[in-house]
This record gives sequence, C-alpha cells and structure tokens, in this order.
Amino acid sequence: MAFSQVEVLPNGLRLAVEERPWTPGVALQLLLPVGAVNDPEGMEGAASLLEGWLWKGAGSRDARALADAFDELGVRRGSSSALEHTTFAAQFLADKLEAVLSLFADLLMRPHLPTEALEAVRQIALQELASLEDQPPKKMFSALRRAVFASNHGRNPSGNKAHLETMTAEALREDFARRYTPQGAIVALVGGISFEQAKEAMQNALGDWSGSGAGYPPVELTPPRAIHLEQDTAQVQIGLIYPDVTIDHPEFYSARLASQVLSGGSSSRLFTEVREKRGLVYSVYAAPNGVKGYSYLTAYAGTTPERADETLRVMQAEIARLSEGVREDELIRTKIGLRAALVMQDESSRSRAASIARDLYMLGRVRTLDEIEAQIAAVDVERINRHLASHPYQNPWIATLGPRKLAGVE
Amino acid sequence: MAFSQVEVLPNGLRLAVEERPWTPGVALQLLLPVGAVNDPEGMEGAASLLEGWLWKGAGSRDARALADAFDELGVRRGSSSALEHTTFAAQFLADKLEAVLSLFADLLMRPHLPTEALEAVRQIALQELASLEDQPPKKMFSALRRAVFASNHGRNPSGNKAHLETMTAEALREDFARRYTPQGAIVALVGGISFEQAKEAMQNALGDWSGSGAGYPPVELTPPRAIHLEQDTAQVQIGLIYPDVTIDHPEFYSARLASQVLSGGSSSRLFTEVREKRGLVYSVYAAPNGVKGYSYLTAYAGTTPERADETLRVMQAEIARLSEGVREDELIRTKIGLRAALVMQDESSRSRAASIARDLYMLGRVRTLDEIEAQIAAVDVERINRHLASHPYQNPWIATLGPRKLAGVE
Repeated sequence: MAFSQVEVLPNGLRLAVEERPWTPGVALQLLLPVGAVNDPEGMEGAASLLEGWLWKGAGSRDARALADAFDELGVRRGSSSALEHTTFAAQFLADKLEAVLSLFADLLMRPHLPTEALEAVRQIALQELASLEDQPPKKMFSALRRAVFASNHGRNPSGNKAHLETMTAEALREDFARRYTPQGAIVALVGGISFEQAKEAMQNALGDWSGSGAGYPPVELTPPRAIHLEQDTAQVQIGLIYPDVTIDHPEFYSARLASQVLSGGSSSRLFTEVREKRGLVYSVYAAPNGVKGYSYLTAYAGTTPERADETLRVMQAEIARLSEGVREDELIRTKIGLRAALVMQDESSRSRAASIARDLYMLGRVRTLDEIEAQIAAVDVERINRHLASHPYQNPWIATLGPRKLAGVE
Repeated sequence: MAFSQVEVLPNGLRLAVEERPWTPGVALQLLLPVGAVNDPEGMEGAASLLEGWLWKGAGSRDARALADAFDELGVRRGSSSALEHTTFAAQFLADKLEAVLSLFADLLMRPHLPTEALEAVRQIALQELASLEDQPPKKMFSALRRAVFASNHGRNPSGNKAHLETMTAEALREDFARRYTPQGAIVALVGGISFEQAKEAMQNALGDWSGSGAGYPPVELTPPRAIHLEQDTAQVQIGLIYPDVTIDHPEFYSARLASQVLSGGSSSRLFTEVREKRGLVYSVYAAPNGVKGYSYLTAYAGTTPERADETLRVMQAEIARLSEGVREDELIRTKIGLRAALVMQDESSRSRAASIARDLYMLGRVRTLDEIEAQIAAVDVERINRHLASHPYQNPWIATLGPRKLAGVE
C-alpha cells in the first residue's frame, strides 16, 4: 500500500511525496496560502491578478520564453486562484523534475511582475468576473456563500470589479512579497520519483525561498436565511448549505457516508426522490464541502419555474429525513460505493496529489487509503444513526436564482 | 508496452481488452450505435429518452432494485446519449466483472421500458433541453453545428422539444428494438482482468444478444456562412469550424500537431496572441473534432461586446497564418507536449478505455501509444509545412451569440 512521506523544509515549506515507481509521469500539486480570504481590504481579486501576472516573466526569461520553457519540457500545467489558495498543478515525465522545479522557483521567487503587462492581466480578470453573469449556477453559489459567511470566506474568488480596476502595480508587488512565501505552502509529488530525489530537488530549487506568510482570518457565519436573485433565466437555480462536522471530528466519516446516502449513487435518496420518481430536475446533488475550520453540506438543483417550489420542498424534506436514520442495506451499499470510488480515484496520480495537498492543509497530515477504508468500515448503522439524530441537517442557508421568488424564500 | 486485443463476437459486438494486471479496478466503455444522427424522423431526442427509460427496470429488477444492484457492486457509472452514440461508462473492482456485465445484459436485452415511467423520463429530457438556454457557449455551438451540417449531424443531441413532448411509448419501444443491437456496438475493457476472462464473461452475458443495427446517414455539409444569435448576455460567444483532414488521412498527424501549435500549451499561438498579449479574452482555444467521415477544427472564444470584433479578427488571422508554416522550435515544443500529454493520459484506465472504443469506431482498429508516438515523431517541419500550405484553414463557418452582431457576421 502506497503512503506519503512528509517533510517540512527549513523554510517552512511542506513537501509530501508518494512514490509510484511503475509510472513514467509525475503529478505535482502546489498550494500557496494566497486566496480571496486573505486578499487585502480594498484589493479583492489581488490573488487572481497575481496568479496571472506571475506568468509575464521570471528569472532570466520573459513571458514568451517562460511559456516556451514549460512547453519544451512537455509540462501539462494549470494554475488558478481560489478562496483559500493559489494552486499550481503540473504533470510531466519523471526525468524533468529538476528542470520543472527550477522554473517554478523562478516563478515563486523571481517573477518580473512588469508594469506594462498588468493591463492585459487585469482585462482577463475582469472578463472572468463578467462571465459569471452568464453562468447561473455559479452566480447563485457565489451569492449563497456570501450569504453564509460574515468573514472573508464569503468573497467571490474572482474579485470585486471596482477593486480589480483600481489595484496598482506597486500595491500588488507589496502583496506578492507578503503572501507568496514558503510558510503555509504545500507541495505534493506523486509518481515515478523517490522521496530522497524529490527532497533534494526541492531543497535545491526552493531552499532559499523565505518569508513568513499572511495567515488566514477566522471563519464567521451569519444566521441562516434565504435569498433570491432575480434573473430572466430558463431554469431556476436552487442552492442549500447546511452546517456539518469538520474533517477532524470523530464522526466525520458518519457524515461523509450520510452525504453518500443522499447523493452517492443511482439509488441515492435525492436522485431517486427528486429526479427518478418525480422527474423534477435534470440535475440534483448534494456534496460535502468546506473551508479550513468549517464544513458544510451543499445541495443543488436546477429546474423549471413551475417545478421549483416542489423541488425545494422535496430536497429539504429528504435532507431533514436523514435525522431519522439510514437503513442497514443503504449503509452497506454506500460503504461499498464510497470505497470503490476511493480506490479508483486513487489510481490517478493527479487526483492523488490533489488529495495529499488538501489533507496537509485541512488536517496537517496525509491520510492513507488504508486509514480511510478502516474508518469507513468502522461506521455501523447504530453509530451513523446516533450521529444523525444528534446532528440533524436543518436550518440551511438557501439561495434561488430565476425569474421569480419561490414560496417561503424572502 | 500495453496493447489491446480485439475480438468480434459472433453476434457482431466488438470487444477490445487491455490488460493492466497491476490495477485493482476495471474501466468499461460501451458504445451503442444509437445517437441523434440516427434518431427516426420526427423523433429527435429518441436516443436521449431511451437512455433514461432503460434504467426504469430490466430483467428481474424494477428501477429501484436495478439501481441498488449497481450500487451494491460498487460500480461508478455514467451514461449519456450524444450525436453518434449512446455511451455507458463504468468503473468497478475486477472481481465484479461478471456481475456487472450481467446487469448490463439485462439493460440491453431485457429492459422493461414501462409506460408509467416514461413521463418522468420525458420531463427530465425536456429540462435538459431547456437548460441549454442558460448555457450560452453550449447554445452557440449547437447552432454552429446546425449551420455546418445539412445531414442529421447538425442535430442537437438533446432533441427537439415538440418531438420529445409527443413521442409515444410504443414508437420508442420499436425504436429500441431496431437500434439497441450488437451490430455496431463496441465494448472496451481496461484494467486488472485478462483477455480470456473478459471474452468468456462477455460471451456469457451478451452472446445471445442479436439484431442488425440501424447504421448511420452520410455526412452532408452546407456552404460556409456566418450566423448570429441575439441574446442579452454579458459575454459574446464566438465559435468557428474549419474543415480538416480525417483520422485515416496520411497527414492526420500533421494536422493534429498544427492544432497543438494553435492551442496546445502556454506558448501556443491563440493563447499568446488573443489572451496573453492583448488581454482580449479569459478563455480561447482550438481543438480537433469530428464525426465519423468528417473532421474539423473548432475554435472558441468568449469575450466582452467591445472586444468581440477584434477577438474574431485576431483568431481568424492566427488560424489562417498556419498556411505560412510553423517554426522548427514551435514544432519541437509541440511534439514534446503532445507526446507527454498522451503518455500521461494513457495512465488513466478510464480515459484509455474511452480512446480504445473511439478508435474502434472511427478507424476500425485500436492504435497503440507506440504507433501514435512514432507517427508524431515522423512529422518534421518540411512535411507539416507542405501539408499546411496545401490544406490551408480557411472559409470557416462562424457563429456568434450575444447582445449585438459583429462586423462581417450576417
């Protein structure tokens, strides 16, 4: 059974490596503690601008040469900024490890951040923000999270239009120096490399990186409420957020299995009751979700205006009904399904690297597949039902988006 | 190097197996020759309705028991109908192979197709169709394909509203009997199973399945033209389709590499010229695409109304400029990038099963990774540039969607 070796480098950067000698490739996942939650006041969207601006030249290379250098190494890569992190993901052949890390070191330690390139970056960020208007589910969820959190956790990761338009190069460079630091950064590597080799390559490339990091604000919530966004769409978007137990809670796996009972397979309750029996929606799901320190259950449906009231009612009823417990046969199927999903997902180096990095962030350590399987196996009907009775899913935050308000939504 | 063994069962079903003894899971990809292109006249959306209706009971099980049975085996599965096929994909642990195939045999050979369940299926299909209105890029591409093809290949896979509303249970059952047949069906299995074991399990489960299949209509094109869809969106959606060489053309790999030069990495021409230098768009790409017998290059951008004219002009100019050839350094990077992408994509059993099934459909045989790598290596600058000069990308079909027409779009 594969496991990850974790090491904290002297500068605070956390490295986790899972060796897979049978694969030719390596998946890298790099999390930087730079997200919308710790964007400075009045600079919402700074993390997004910095992530775009970084690529405009670093070390000895201008933007063009930097792009060419990654392409010459055959690196598939993506980067994005989100609520809590800026993420760099890359996949490449194992013998390119040192060359790839050296390019990332240029990006993180020696970016040019040239003033003349900022306008194009700003325009792209503004376009990304504007495109939210044409994506009703995303727009609804953005408003819903804003309704849930009193803290910065409710911010839109794409930023604020007025702030994006006015941030100066100088303020962004200061922000870069403050937040792009090894303290709080996490690198996960999965694939055909050894731990020792990875550690040496990381130390060579990023050992001199320094800085103390910006930290995160505490989570603050608002009282649950319902909001409606009026928009002339064909479908009504419905989103719900329920408080849930965090990943370090002793009953985390009971909650995880409960969300699978709701939405984990073709016999799951939401799929059966909302879609299959009543034909109310094309798409309905529930999924566990969260930020560091606060976890929640998200539920979603998109439906026609005529079916929206009934859809919301049935969803809430099904979710509330979890407190009455699950059946033995449901739990057995759910455990089988969750285990199979984990085993097969684990096959992909890329998704394993992402899980490792996320575990290090959320838990401070990496769970093995064995550990997760044992925890799931240990949840029996009595235990999950005791948990569900004492932690009922109730009082959600609700957001709807569509041509008219639903009954019972303010 | 892994390779696929292919066998045609006596009933016409084609089976391809790639053994990966080191993985615990198996990925299955099943293509049925049931898509929008061969939906009967006046029944556009029949493939979509049938795919939903199938799950309402089969063999000895009603809908609920069928869903439970898949979940009890820990199967992750998805199914959908598209232009040329209805696809069933599944992933499961290897020791469940026979049980899983036996459930699929019930679905394909012994579905109940109960009249009372059809209404809910119809409502879901209508909702899927309606949701297109809230997805501007998808809506634009749907209209663009309709503008390209005079044949059924321009149909919307989600169907036609009036047809979906009026199709009867009886007509759908007849259609099922005609199109759900082993002739033209393809199964790919990749994972921890042997060819012999897979073949025997397939023969046991589906050996008695019979029928001669519906076939496909020939591709017919319209003359290139530009269309505009007026919609009050924040962004303008721009789509282009250019004729290209098919997968069995000797210069297929030259064309594949040319599309990578356009859009294959961070130094690709469209990304650099449209996004990075000018900041015109958040998202721009080009990608090879096609149906059996006809291949095309698709290009896409989403941008603000003010930048739409320039975006369209720069995209067309960059694509047309391919006929002047590519540089040696560009080609080298592109070859490295394409090879690395193929090697890493091949790691996933699920994506490998999908490629195998697609190869069998498009080419009638399965390409190995070795073959593809050799073909890519064999394309040098002189060869690709000769191809691009003699096969210039020009005269595209164009679709735009947004609040106003662009200059030069009818």
